[in-house]
Amino acid sequence: MDESCYWNKKTFAIVTGASRGIGRTLAEKISQQIGPDSVLLLISRDEKDLDSLQKAIETDRPSVRVHVGVTDLSNCDESALNGVVSSALAGESAESFAHALCVHNAGSLGDATKRCTDLLSVNSCVQYFQLNLASVVVLNAIFLRRFTSPVVQQRKTVVNMSSLCGVEPFSSLSLYCTGKAGRDMFFKVLAKEEPDVRVLNYAPGPVETNMRVQLLHQSWTEEIKSGGLGLTTEMTCDRLMAILARDSYASGAHVDYYDP
Amino acid sequence: MDESCYWNKKTFAIVTGASRGIGRTLAEKISQQIGPDSVLLLISRDEKDLDSLQKAIETDRPSVRVHVGVTDLSNCDESALNGVVSSALAGESAESFAHALCVHNAGSLGDATKRCTDLLSVNSCVQYFQLNLASVVVLNAIFLRRFTSPVVQQRKTVVNMSSLCGVEPFSSLSLYCTGKAGRDMFFKVLAKEEPDVRVLNYAPGPVETNMRVQLLHQSWTEEIKSGGLGLTTEMTCDRLMAILARDSYASGAHVDYYDP
Repeated sequence: MDESCYWNKKTFAIVTGASRGIGRTLAEKISQQIGPDSVLLLISRDEKDLDSLQKAIETDRPSVRVHVGVTDLSNCDESALNGVVSSALAGESAESFAHALCVHNAGSLGDATKRCTDLLSVNSCVQYFQLNLASVVVLNAIFLRRFTSPVVQQRKTVVNMSSLCGVEPFSSLSLYCTGKAGRDMFFKVLAKEEPDVRVLNYAPGPVETNMRVQLLHQSWTEEIKSGGLGLTTEMTCDRLMAILARDSYASGAHVDYYDP
Repeated sequence: MDESCYWNKKTFAIVTGASRGIGRTLAEKISQQIGPDSVLLLISRDEKDLDSLQKAIETDRPSVRVHVGVTDLSNCDESALNGVVSSALAGESAESFAHALCVHNAGSLGDATKRCTDLLSVNSCVQYFQLNLASVVVLNAIFLRRFTSPVVQQRKTVVNMSSLCGVEPFSSLSLYCTGKAGRDMFFKVLAKEEPDVRVLNYAPGPVETNMRVQLLHQSWTEEIKSGGLGLTTEMTCDRLMAILARDSYASGAHVDYYDP
């Protein structure tokens, strides 16, 4: 397709984990590319950081309406998620959007000081999978159910922020690897079930974020410590935006920053 | 190695989901192969079925002590799991066992009538991942921590009952695929972290169990409906017992019933 066709449309876009790191940069990039009258829903626990991002985007792109959804994805139910999406739509018809995009970016590393044999709390594991799997599954269903018009042709895109850890095991990252492998598989099933939704599992590479600082600080393994300098959030978000615009990936595929 | 060497030792063995299906048959097979004075801990919610299995095994192999651990793995904490393992050891020293084996067989299919876009309850998803991931992670840690003697050389084996669904997406089975992919990855990380533990992800093939009846009844997809006749639990458990005895798999590998 013509790459300029992908973005410049009236879009309803969700980015989770938008307050910082990759999510924040990606929200900014998306806001610069989507068409006038688009709505951008930013989800995170961190109200202060979301508010500052909202102000920055609204100054930069006054034609895009930014909605802040302060939500703790490790501890919320479906009615809270439903409420956030409804508030962002603010009575606008879902059919008025030419493109619906959801980026599942929120996630946590887990405690990288711990080995598998140190994971002794059921509740901690349950919380981990609530944030990194369950809330993703349910927000995704809520999102897609809003955009099922039988009369209007809408582009629908779902992006899962994946990781090399979703396809390769790394010592000290058992919960992270488990969650990412599970998420990748969930979105592969989604791609099979919903052929009219474009689904991308994107592995952003080693990006210089707070999560990477935590990882380098906590992990005991040389494999991880010796990772060298990471990418900037700019670099990986530019790559992701280009992959989406080119629109040539197989739906459900795992695509890495470093893939040719 | 000499295949006869693997089994006939004083073993502490756990089988979860032992009350029926693959777990029940596997518990019987293990009880026939382990050495005198072994302990076999059977875990399931279903007390009645566990009791009948215990009686059957104790009649068949009086030299094996069978302990029943009635536990709901979808709703228990680490102290319950710890208690069950302690009760099974019954004051015996962990160092007295030549082999420690844990088979993570328990699991649930999820609701195969549901598409990804029907998964609208956070609590249902959390429960699913508690049974199929969190309880597995914690029981595994509790088990391995019991067998860390610095003085006695003990064989340690962990088996994860995996599935083709852990490596390939199937419509109508999003939670099942997600959980199995996550479990496979968790045990790959375990294999990396603990080189002295033998870790096997075993995909048992399409076995004629209650889970398969549920699947054929619920799923809407032709791919699954057209699966044809399944294997017996005997067939897949014999295969697993042989793979363990041969002991030639790479630790952490995913091995399927149909692999050559």
